[in-house]
Amino acid sequence: MGIQTVIAELSTFLGQRVSCSKSELELHGQSETHFPLMPPDAVAYPESTEEVAKIVQACARHRIPVIGWGVGTSLEAQAQAPKGGICVDFSRMNNILEVRQADMDVTVQPGVTREALNEDLRATGLFFPVDPGANATLGGMAATRASGTTTVRYGSMRQNVLALEVVTASGEVIRTGSRARKTSSGYDLTGLFVGSEGTLGLITELTLRLQGQPEAVASAVCAFPSVGNAVAAVIDTIQMGIPMARIELVDVASVEAVNAYSGSELDAAPHLLLEFHGSDAGVAEKSETFGAIAESHGGAGFEWATKAEDRNALWAMRHNAYHAIKASRPGAKVLVTDVCVPISNLAQVIEETCLDLEKSGIHGPIVGHVGDGNFHTSLMFDDTDATQVSAVKAASNRMVERALAFGGTVTGEHGVGLGKLNYMEREHGSGWAMMGAIKQALDPENIMNPGKLVPPRN
Amino acid sequence: MGIQTVIAELSTFLGQRVSCSKSELELHGQSETHFPLMPPDAVAYPESTEEVAKIVQACARHRIPVIGWGVGTSLEAQAQAPKGGICVDFSRMNNILEVRQADMDVTVQPGVTREALNEDLRATGLFFPVDPGANATLGGMAATRASGTTTVRYGSMRQNVLALEVVTASGEVIRTGSRARKTSSGYDLTGLFVGSEGTLGLITELTLRLQGQPEAVASAVCAFPSVGNAVAAVIDTIQMGIPMARIELVDVASVEAVNAYSGSELDAAPHLLLEFHGSDAGVAEKSETFGAIAESHGGAGFEWATKAEDRNALWAMRHNAYHAIKASRPGAKVLVTDVCVPISNLAQVIEETCLDLEKSGIHGPIVGHVGDGNFHTSLMFDDTDATQVSAVKAASNRMVERALAFGGTVTGEHGVGLGKLNYMEREHGSGWAMMGAIKQALDPENIMNPGKLVPPRN
Ligand SMILES: Cc1cc2nc3c(=O)[nH]c(=O)nc-3n(C[C@H](O)[C@H](O)[C@H](O)COP(=O)(O)OP(=O)(O)OC[C@H]3O[C@@H](n4cnc5c(N)ncnc54)[C@H](O)[C@@H]3O)c2cc1C
Ligand SMILES: Cc1cc2nc3c(=O)[nH]c(=O)nc-3n(C[C@H](O)[C@H](O)[C@H](O)COP(=O)(O)OP(=O)(O)OC[C@H]3O[C@@H](n4cnc5c(N)ncnc54)[C@H](O)[C@@H]3O)c2cc1C
Repeated sequence: MGIQTVIAELSTFLGQRVSCSKSELELHGQSETHFPLMPPDAVAYPESTEEVAKIVQACARHRIPVIGWGVGTSLEAQAQAPKGGICVDFSRMNNILEVRQADMDVTVQPGVTREALNEDLRATGLFFPVDPGANATLGGMAATRASGTTTVRYGSMRQNVLALEVVTASGEVIRTGSRARKTSSGYDLTGLFVGSEGTLGLITELTLRLQGQPEAVASAVCAFPSVGNAVAAVIDTIQMGIPMARIELVDVASVEAVNAYSGSELDAAPHLLLEFHGSDAGVAEKSETFGAIAESHGGAGFEWATKAEDRNALWAMRHNAYHAIKASRPGAKVLVTDVCVPISNLAQVIEETCLDLEKSGIHGPIVGHVGDGNFHTSLMFDDTDATQVSAVKAASNRMVERALAFGGTVTGEHGVGLGKLNYMEREHGSGWAMMGAIKQALDPENIMNPGKLVPPRN
Repeated sequence: MGIQTVIAELSTFLGQRVSCSKSELELHGQSETHFPLMPPDAVAYPESTEEVAKIVQACARHRIPVIGWGVGTSLEAQAQAPKGGICVDFSRMNNILEVRQADMDVTVQPGVTREALNEDLRATGLFFPVDPGANATLGGMAATRASGTTTVRYGSMRQNVLALEVVTASGEVIRTGSRARKTSSGYDLTGLFVGSEGTLGLITELTLRLQGQPEAVASAVCAFPSVGNAVAAVIDTIQMGIPMARIELVDVASVEAVNAYSGSELDAAPHLLLEFHGSDAGVAEKSETFGAIAESHGGAGFEWATKAEDRNALWAMRHNAYHAIKASRPGAKVLVTDVCVPISNLAQVIEETCLDLEKSGIHGPIVGHVGDGNFHTSLMFDDTDATQVSAVKAASNRMVERALAFGGTVTGEHGVGLGKLNYMEREHGSGWAMMGAIKQALDPENIMNPGKLVPPRN
């Protein structure tokens, strides 16, 4: 069989770095959420672009699927292997290749995690802003077009990847973009690979924009009488052009989970968690203006944290929200759904979602990057109970439909993978067929992460 | 002949709105710069997406080239018709369809110019930031991935187009993107069409991000002893995280042209023109900090303008720089070259370019969006003098090679068209072939603006 030939071929240059052990396969066949196990046939651990190219060339010759793997935190089964094949785990390609302070950019291998990068940058006065909560790899983040708490200020991976090195479906190495801050030199190939979930090629190097560490940072939590009031405060703040570095919504159910998990004592009300970056005077001014806006929308119990340790505790609490929510129903499975809508519709969409979940008897706490109109629910269920499974799927379905009806997208940041595949035609119409045509042109044998994102081929 | 059949077919639904008059053809066959006349066979003036689709369908049936036309200000012959065909002039599709204040977005037809849009937005407290100097159309700006003086703060068309309606090469109408601020829902088709210069489809509608008009604005001019000093001041400012809304370099030759044309009295030295947006206190603070940075790099003769009319005069002077430069050599032709490099290399690249031009005896004033590492030269020549023509072409060639050698791109914002076609392989290697594969997949008959941007097909 082709797959055995390929594995044998890979061992000739990877040696022990290609594995078929059951534990490795299972580790690379599972997801963070509710998807069943879909293991690859083998896991390869390349250490260089050349090795990645040789892996893909071998797979191309034998038409064997190739699936990239960062740290497997993606939430829509992007990194799983429904059709088997070779999982390319980038954990050994984790070098920070060059930091250029004057240009505020950095070149990294794809297996570098965002926390490792920021650790390394600490002394330079620079940082990489995109923050999906999980300590994901930069390759995985580019592949899913990740964003997070700071996107409202600094953009998502779309805005922060300057250039890529990519191994294409034929095993060729290409470079896209450059270190120039902007370009009009042809089709935006960098932008095409960002968000393509490994279906067009494997990213072997990334050049990223960095930001200067702000002179001053102030974070705060503030309770609101309703989600609508909280969102109204966010809209006013954005309209006044007050640049927020972060603005997060945590609903009542999430607050309760977080209190229980992190020992915090937030009131049982929707909260905004926010952060301002700037000069000392600038941050003070913005905080004051925001305070007034929040108050006018019923915001209460404002607490500002300017000390790093207090701020870190606040954001650790936010970043642990998913784990806190999971811990609130031990043993339950989680279906995470992420949508994004125009901000003027956000409050209504969240409120309708809450009502819907209540009526359906589903526990589904909500957190959101509200400055972008983006929010998530974690729908908890018992996967041995068929009624619950179908209720949760139906509720998630309605949430996605609601997002589309309100001018939004079926996924703001988690991506398509298998979980959102069925909504692609609804969202994009014949644009989805166009994505399929691009895939066909760049990966005619359909070996790059097959079964994901584009229309299925037979 | 196919073209006559198509023109006859178009007249059935466009009536007088398809024209073959010599003056119309010449108007749509010329460029702002040195390219010779390349007229289309006919010019069509559609008034709706449906009409555009019918035009493209007719052309597709007969394999006739279709070339979009905004106002023809592009600088690399993008809108000219080297292979004849139907020029689709969008001037009658110039409606602003919907402004959504809470969401800070707007939907427009492609023929709306940026000045018309901002005029319309004035009362809303919002504005559209991308500013290529020329009063270009938003369709043309998206097609060339335009940027300009404010890109350092607000991004280029890449960052400011949320969604598009496009008529594809087969005459089908598709929609890309949505009004959501971000999305991970599949390949970035919006990003693919932005910058594709009409080679993949015609844009018939755009949804754009807007910005809040800042509470306070301060502009300034400041002279520096050398380009190197000016750029060093820019780098320091960016590194300190001081958000500039604009930061423009004008070299000595440009200053002289501008003084003569606009009656200004700037010293014969390189100047920075800059602008800050924010709150009153924020702008004052930034201005002060910048003043100190500039001084430490030899900046002198600082003049701040906070009154709208003084600021407008300043930016009118900057926007007229191209005309001022043209006027400084009446009758001369101009070859405009635009490159973009990492900012740490900018001073050296500009200085080497100046020396090169001096040695070559070419008059080529330089202006630049230096915050992005982007600059332009306007190389003046007499097109009846073969020696001058080849000297200018060689100098422009060296400038492009220099940009690539210093990690940059052959065009920061003017695009590829015909003028930069020969450099695409140099810059992108086999990435250029990948662009060709995408073009082949989406426009198999090669009718959309043929001869531009991608590798020529036979
Ligand atoms: C608690 C929690 C919170 C989260 N919060 C957010 C959030 O706020 N925002 C957000 O965007 N996401 C969030 N996520 C999802 C996840 O972190 C992101 O999708 C992240 O980008 C995945 O990175 P990864 O390294 O884990 O990639 P993986 O899951 O390993 O892979 C993701 C996809 O990228 C492909 N891939 C991986 N590496 C490469 C490569 N080098 N070249 C080509 N393709 C590659 C894979 O094949 C797969 O399709 C969260 C996840 C968790 C568990
Ligand atoms: C004085 C001067 C200064 C300039 N400064 C800048 C600058 O700072 N930054 C910058 O980026 N540019 C600058 N330019 C170049 C020019 O203004 C831009 O390229 C602009 O985007 C062109 O817009 P347009 O409406 O004139 O398009 P056109 O020149 O008419 O067309 C440009 C391209 O877009 C295509 N096109 C037009 N409309 C559509 C549509 N609806 N759908 C699909 N394709 C379409 C055309 O086929 C062509 O390929 C300058 C030009 C001048 C003359």
